[in-house]
Amino acid sequence: MTKQELIHQIRLKKSFLCIGLDVDLTKVPIHLLELEDPIFEFNKQLIDATHHLAVAYKPNTAFYEAYGIKGWKSLEKTINYLNEKHPEIFTIADAKRGDIGNTSTMYAKAFFEDLKFDSVTVAPYMGSDSVEPFLAFEDKFTILLALTSNRGGLDFQGMKVNNNELYKEVLQKAISWKNSDNLMFVVGATKAEYFESIRKIVPNHFLLVPGIGAQGGNLQDVCKYGLTKDVGLLINSSRGIIYAGNELDFAQKAQEKALELQQEMALILGK
Amino acid sequence: MTKQELIHQIRLKKSFLCIGLDVDLTKVPIHLLELEDPIFEFNKQLIDATHHLAVAYKPNTAFYEAYGIKGWKSLEKTINYLNEKHPEIFTIADAKRGDIGNTSTMYAKAFFEDLKFDSVTVAPYMGSDSVEPFLAFEDKFTILLALTSNRGGLDFQGMKVNNNELYKEVLQKAISWKNSDNLMFVVGATKAEYFESIRKIVPNHFLLVPGIGAQGGNLQDVCKYGLTKDVGLLINSSRGIIYAGNELDFAQKAQEKALELQQEMALILGK
Repeated sequence: MTKQELIHQIRLKKSFLCIGLDVDLTKVPIHLLELEDPIFEFNKQLIDATHHLAVAYKPNTAFYEAYGIKGWKSLEKTINYLNEKHPEIFTIADAKRGDIGNTSTMYAKAFFEDLKFDSVTVAPYMGSDSVEPFLAFEDKFTILLALTSNRGGLDFQGMKVNNNELYKEVLQKAISWKNSDNLMFVVGATKAEYFESIRKIVPNHFLLVPGIGAQGGNLQDVCKYGLTKDVGLLINSSRGIIYAGNELDFAQKAQEKALELQQEMALILGK
Repeated sequence: MTKQELIHQIRLKKSFLCIGLDVDLTKVPIHLLELEDPIFEFNKQLIDATHHLAVAYKPNTAFYEAYGIKGWKSLEKTINYLNEKHPEIFTIADAKRGDIGNTSTMYAKAFFEDLKFDSVTVAPYMGSDSVEPFLAFEDKFTILLALTSNRGGLDFQGMKVNNNELYKEVLQKAISWKNSDNLMFVVGATKAEYFESIRKIVPNHFLLVPGIGAQGGNLQDVCKYGLTKDVGLLINSSRGIIYAGNELDFAQKAQEKALELQQEMALILGK
């Protein structure tokens, strides 16, 4: 998918919502566990109920790998379902990969060619030649970790380097790499006050923002500083949506939570 | 496997060699491609030919994921083969994972419980709570990226933080985390001169050292500064060993290269 197509979908749906498909079998409705592939069935019903409200879906690979080959099959079925039924959806493999050059090329092939995701999340620690192999793929996006919203996020990302926090150095260096137009960045929503300075470094790149709950948390704050003329934001919600219910009507409950966020986004985009 | 068992195996085999199983189907002997699972067959023959010379094997997950479910099956067969036939071998999933707490737990389950690896490589960028879930597993090891040997390795790892390079801060912080006895560190062999200062921070932890070729490169230098009383080093060679030949006798060629390194190691350990 091209960036223009993504922006078009955002305008069309009045939504920049990404739904995280982090499927934990201890949390899905019990009635699904009797089925042959409960993970895929859970995802399928969620996608059917919410695809008109979201522009992106983001399975986190850890939740599939934990179930071995069965889990990998569920991941494959999920991405195939998205690509066949909803080719207008932007798909993100939340895999946080990154390795030396030839090895990153293998990861890029795994996610872009074998599974046919539109994008993959990548960790920056190993530097330019661990990221550039991902960037070499046309109309595919590499979503680089910059500032994450977890408790230990600032352990290293917040360290001062050249009088600048490390995550800012990551942003600064990354935009000088080859094919940096294919970059997006992960920026945690718990630090809404940082979006202003981040936008000074990357005024136009899309930011993938995790950490917003079903209540919309600080969506307003993030948008105040993070929005660009082409929107430039994908706001992710995982647990707040997919585990909104755990009975027979779980997909409807998820839809309600997604709708709340979409409506808030429509208001923001309408301003 | 416990650290004591690993050290015992190193003494017994007079070897601290790790063999990287980075299987690229464009590089394996052509006669294997006719078989049902050429990746596993390649690994099996290599393991059969070299297991008495190496103490560890390290499949890099990228090379398996690139082939989708088939590749994941080859990885599973490889680790099962190692665990069943050679339980004395220390196994490393070179996966370079790392995510927020609950997600890292899923990765730890994938590699420690589902696949039953002894250890997994992890990236430090997301900080303490992205690594500690791995460290919580008893008799399992988390091999944290510190200093990598790739071209872009120093892009961020070499940045000065508190008058200290970032990779040293990573070492320093990591040893303060819960269950840090279960840590090992990746330190690239191309920077042998750095081992002296690294040993001041982590005098006893095992270091996994990639970047040594079939010729033994700077093995002497690395050992001069890196060896501890319990050896404390695992030296990895991948392409230099596994692609030493690509005819019918590829496993024998690999054995010859592994033997060269093992003999050099035996001399060093004998001093």
